[in-house]
Amino acid sequence: MGRRMGRKNDIDLGPLPELIGYVLRRAQLVVFQDFFGAFAPFDIRPAQFSVLTVIERNPGLTQSQVAEALGIKRTNFVGMLDTLETRGLTERRQAVRDKRSYALYLTAEGAALMRKLKPALKAQESRMVGKVGEDGRDRLIALLHEIADGHGPRNGARIKGPVKNWKASRSPRAGSAET
Amino acid sequence: MGRRMGRKNDIDLGPLPELIGYVLRRAQLVVFQDFFGAFAPFDIRPAQFSVLTVIERNPGLTQSQVAEALGIKRTNFVGMLDTLETRGLTERRQAVRDKRSYALYLTAEGAALMRKLKPALKAQESRMVGKVGEDGRDRLIALLHEIADGHGPRNGARIKGPVKNWKASRSPRAGSAET
Repeated sequence: MGRRMGRKNDIDLGPLPELIGYVLRRAQLVVFQDFFGAFAPFDIRPAQFSVLTVIERNPGLTQSQVAEALGIKRTNFVGMLDTLETRGLTERRQAVRDKRSYALYLTAEGAALMRKLKPALKAQESRMVGKVGEDGRDRLIALLHEIADGHGPRNGARIKGPVKNWKASRSPRAGSAET
Repeated sequence: MGRRMGRKNDIDLGPLPELIGYVLRRAQLVVFQDFFGAFAPFDIRPAQFSVLTVIERNPGLTQSQVAEALGIKRTNFVGMLDTLETRGLTERRQAVRDKRSYALYLTAEGAALMRKLKPALKAQESRMVGKVGEDGRDRLIALLHEIADGHGPRNGARIKGPVKNWKASRSPRAGSAET
C-alpha cells in the first residue's frame, strides 16, 4: 500500500507515511521550522507566542488558568513565564481574589512586541495556506480539531464545519465510510 | 472570527485555534499521548518506532541514511541508536562499501518486538480514524503531506489524492478558493 509515498530516496518507509501520528509530526516540524525562521528576529518560539496571546487577550488570568488553557505542564510553564518576565514582556501581580496566586499581564513592552509580531504571523500563515489553498486550510483545521478535541463524525465521510469560511458548496452527502 | 472555537472555558484564545501551527501541535500532542499509552508496555516512543520500522524495511542502511530519511538530527539519532542497541533491539555492523560507516540491522529480538507492536499500532490508528472517519483520515493525510512536503494545489480548493482509498466520489470541481 502507498508504494509511491512509502519511499523516500529509495528508502522504504513502510506504513509510516500513512500513519496519522507520523505525518502529523512531520507537518508540525515543518510548520514550526518556518515559524522559528520568521520569529527569530524577535526571539519568540511558538509556545511563547501562544502564552503571550492568551495573556494579551485575557489580562489578569492566573498562571494555572493560562497553563491549563494551553495544555502546558505547570513545571514547564513556570520556566517559560520566568523567561518572559526576565525579558520584560510579562508581569505577575498578586491576584485580587486569591492572595496566594498570581495574575498575569503583558507589560507595555510585551504589548508592543505583540503588535510587531502580527505581520510575521500573517506571513507565516499565508505560506502555509499557499501549500494547501484556503479551502484546504479550512478542512485541515477542522480535521485537526476533531483529532485534538475528540469530537467529530464517528464513521462518516462528512466533515462538520465549525470554521469560518467553511464552504457551503462542500457536498454534505455521507457514505463511502469503511470499517 | 471563530468565536466558538476561540474560547475554552471562557478563556479567549484569540486567533490560535485557527492557526495551522497551533492546531497541528495540539493534535500531534494528543496523538502522541495516545501512542505513549498504547506503547508503554513495550517502552517504545514514536521516534523509536519510526527508526525500528525503517531498519526493519531496509536492513543494512547506514546511520546517516536512516537519520536523513526520518529527518532526525544526527546528534539525536546517535543517542537513540545507543538506547536501542543497549536494549538488544538493533545492531551496528561495519558497512561493506564504506569501512568507516556502520550498517544497521534489527536483532532477532528487535524483529520479534516489531511483530508484537503491530496490533497496538493498528489499534492506535483505529482510534484516530474513529474521530475523523476513513475519508477524513485520507483527506487529513493528504493535506499533511502537502504541508510537510511543500507540494500541492497552490491556490485551489481541489485536493489531489496521492493516498490509496482516495474517494473518486469526491467532487473534482475547483472554485471557491480565495486569495
